[in-house]
Amino acid sequence: MKTMKRPLAAALLGMAGVLFSASSFAALSEKQISVMDAIKTEVKQDTLSYSLIESLTTEVGSRMVGTPGADLATTWAVNKLKTLGFDKVWIEESQAQLWQRGDLTLQITAPFPHKVVGLALGGSVGTDGKPLTAEVVHFADLAELQAAPAGSLKGKIAYVGYKMERHIDGHGYGKAVGARVAGASAAASKGAVAFLMRSVGTDTDRIGHTGVMRYDEKHPKIPAVAISNPDADLLENMFTRNQPVSFTITTNASGPTGKTVTIANVIGDVTGSTKPNEYVTLGAHIDSWDVGTGAVDDGIGMGIIMAAGHYIAELPERPARTLRVILFAAEEIGLVGAEDYVKRHADDMSQHVMGAEWDFGNGEIYKMEPGVGPTALNAIRDFAEYIAPMGVALASTNTAKGQSDMSLLGKAGQPAVNFAPDGLDYFDFHHTENDTLDKVDQDALKVNTAIYTLFAYFATSSDTDFRK
Amino acid sequence: MKTMKRPLAAALLGMAGVLFSASSFAALSEKQISVMDAIKTEVKQDTLSYSLIESLTTEVGSRMVGTPGADLATTWAVNKLKTLGFDKVWIEESQAQLWQRGDLTLQITAPFPHKVVGLALGGSVGTDGKPLTAEVVHFADLAELQAAPAGSLKGKIAYVGYKMERHIDGHGYGKAVGARVAGASAAASKGAVAFLMRSVGTDTDRIGHTGVMRYDEKHPKIPAVAISNPDADLLENMFTRNQPVSFTITTNASGPTGKTVTIANVIGDVTGSTKPNEYVTLGAHIDSWDVGTGAVDDGIGMGIIMAAGHYIAELPERPARTLRVILFAAEEIGLVGAEDYVKRHADDMSQHVMGAEWDFGNGEIYKMEPGVGPTALNAIRDFAEYIAPMGVALASTNTAKGQSDMSLLGKAGQPAVNFAPDGLDYFDFHHTENDTLDKVDQDALKVNTAIYTLFAYFATSSDTDFRK
Repeated sequence: MKTMKRPLAAALLGMAGVLFSASSFAALSEKQISVMDAIKTEVKQDTLSYSLIESLTTEVGSRMVGTPGADLATTWAVNKLKTLGFDKVWIEESQAQLWQRGDLTLQITAPFPHKVVGLALGGSVGTDGKPLTAEVVHFADLAELQAAPAGSLKGKIAYVGYKMERHIDGHGYGKAVGARVAGASAAASKGAVAFLMRSVGTDTDRIGHTGVMRYDEKHPKIPAVAISNPDADLLENMFTRNQPVSFTITTNASGPTGKTVTIANVIGDVTGSTKPNEYVTLGAHIDSWDVGTGAVDDGIGMGIIMAAGHYIAELPERPARTLRVILFAAEEIGLVGAEDYVKRHADDMSQHVMGAEWDFGNGEIYKMEPGVGPTALNAIRDFAEYIAPMGVALASTNTAKGQSDMSLLGKAGQPAVNFAPDGLDYFDFHHTENDTLDKVDQDALKVNTAIYTLFAYFATSSDTDFRK
Repeated sequence: MKTMKRPLAAALLGMAGVLFSASSFAALSEKQISVMDAIKTEVKQDTLSYSLIESLTTEVGSRMVGTPGADLATTWAVNKLKTLGFDKVWIEESQAQLWQRGDLTLQITAPFPHKVVGLALGGSVGTDGKPLTAEVVHFADLAELQAAPAGSLKGKIAYVGYKMERHIDGHGYGKAVGARVAGASAAASKGAVAFLMRSVGTDTDRIGHTGVMRYDEKHPKIPAVAISNPDADLLENMFTRNQPVSFTITTNASGPTGKTVTIANVIGDVTGSTKPNEYVTLGAHIDSWDVGTGAVDDGIGMGIIMAAGHYIAELPERPARTLRVILFAAEEIGLVGAEDYVKRHADDMSQHVMGAEWDFGNGEIYKMEPGVGPTALNAIRDFAEYIAPMGVALASTNTAKGQSDMSLLGKAGQPAVNFAPDGLDYFDFHHTENDTLDKVDQDALKVNTAIYTLFAYFATSSDTDFRK
């Protein structure tokens, strides 16, 4: 790991009084502004968060629940947090369901044979490693599949061709992901023997996008597979020939095994000076899918929040509140680590005064939305005004409940700020082999790390009760 | 296949006299200009070349020498050429070496284990399907590998990390491809047991680029594999840890089998009216690699020249010379079909009056370079002036010998024009799974098809002896 060119503490000493902004921020003290000015200048030039992602992706790589990478990642994270200056570092273990991908081959069998590229969806059953061949029925989207008559897919494979839209805030995902989660059981409910879908992704790579799916226990469990966008195009072109289209799936994906594996949230505290029992939390998830090296999802989040903790730990004067960095386990298979965190911390959840997560996007933050009490909005507005010159607009709404893992803490009452980074290309790589280190935008990463560090400092040094 | 909205013949009749340009072209007759104006207008609106590529990639797909797709492609092409109005369609069979890819798994074994994505190079031997594990030695480029001391790689794997540059004319390929062709034997000459390289490609996809390699018979034949660009980055990051890096290759690639397979050039003539024994040739190659569907390489070339032949065949008046469309076999493994064509046509090569190939690029043509006699340059200049408004500049040089397959006809004396399309993204897809239909730029394709049709008409209707 690289270290800062110039220790932040030294920079702060050198700059005190010089960078003092003329304060127009009612809720920010002159001292806070002075520290924030120094953080902004220093962190934007530093490469710590990138170094952490480089280390994670090189020395650990993918870290799906139940794989050796997941355990390696725990050890890696504990060691790093200690090195970075967190004064308490621990893990909180719980259990998650085991799923194993196994092998997969896919083929358009008729009218024109083609090998096809795709991935089993997370949780999918297999075909016992034997070829399953059936005629394919094409549906435009999940709604069309759900509207198919009962029994109409008996012995067939249902295919949903819905193509995800590209948007800066990633809202195309919400419109596409329903088929991934619920498509297999919708198909099975009509008699289908397997479920195929166009990958939930905005790229044109011959690479499949995986992601979690769920079985409705009322229906038979059938294999669920996402094919790459170019292969989805190819399959759809078959249908224009007005001949039966058939497809073969061969996989030994495990489906629900009934077995559980131990997972671990990795947590580090930078203990506050005067209010150590008030926690400002920064979250990201430590697990990834087994394809790619999880550089973007969620290596970026891990790098940003671990670095932010380091910068706060390095300040010459410790802020009043504790900064808690939480690397949640098993996010990809349904926020399992976050669920454990909330249960385990029910008694002190009221002391969780503010939280933010990073689990989306590769570009610069362009917006922030708070979810705080009406009085606390004043402090949020001051913070937003401070970071506005960094290109971050304050949303007009105040409904944030936390993103990804942090949404469960939000539901449990923790105030939140949601930061929105440019996610235009996020779903090009999401849940694919292509989620690798080269996809990390190093310039955006520096700015985003600075913003999260500023936020961490603002919230830990603030007097504001964000619930009020 | 779609047909033209309005048959070209009818359009020509309707437009005759109306679109007559005021001729400033000394070597182009008013009639030629009138026909060319109609071609330009009509072809730029038509989708025939795209329909051909769609048909080829959907109904045939990949077509590597020795695979079922290669034979399917022959049948497909013969049928299409007949349907498109070529009056003579035939195949010319010869033999090419058989190579079989087999399976491949790749893994960084130490210091940090990772599965890696790549492809065996075309022609590579395998490891008999058994894991071959050895320490990796990193070389910046082929020259550095060639400069390694004799015996210094004994028992090791040589890795060349040279990264291809992106240029509009693709000249980065020439600087990168030497390692692909000669790297394995260079490594073997120093004692290496396998050769690894960064893929020759400009993309950042976790997808390998294949392509032909050659063994020098003086040295042992060792496996040769290209890994994806993100995996090359990952491997190189291993070297920064100052620990030994080892790698495992497992493949049953066949290497040179000693067996040959029958290949077939597919040829179609649109016979000239008054000089049927003078041939203007348009070339592309019918084979592809086994990954992807060969949409860009060289489905685009096939679509363009087959469509151009159709448009010439459809003209109300047949040009004087014969337009010959040649779909060369086995280009990817060393211009094998083109070599056969030149041998077989040695006696009438002097009647090959002009040729052009399409085997590069996905964007619009921006330049043309002739390779003709000094007198014939006048006619070329007039043609160039005619297509200049379509964005095509005339090169100041006159040294073209034909591209790809057509270079062998050029060496045998056939004059040529080389058209240069924008190839900025060509090597993102070249020789990969990602060479699929969606990569075809449909707008550029229309313009390029129009330019090739204009060229075909210009050369077949010309009185010029392009050798003089």
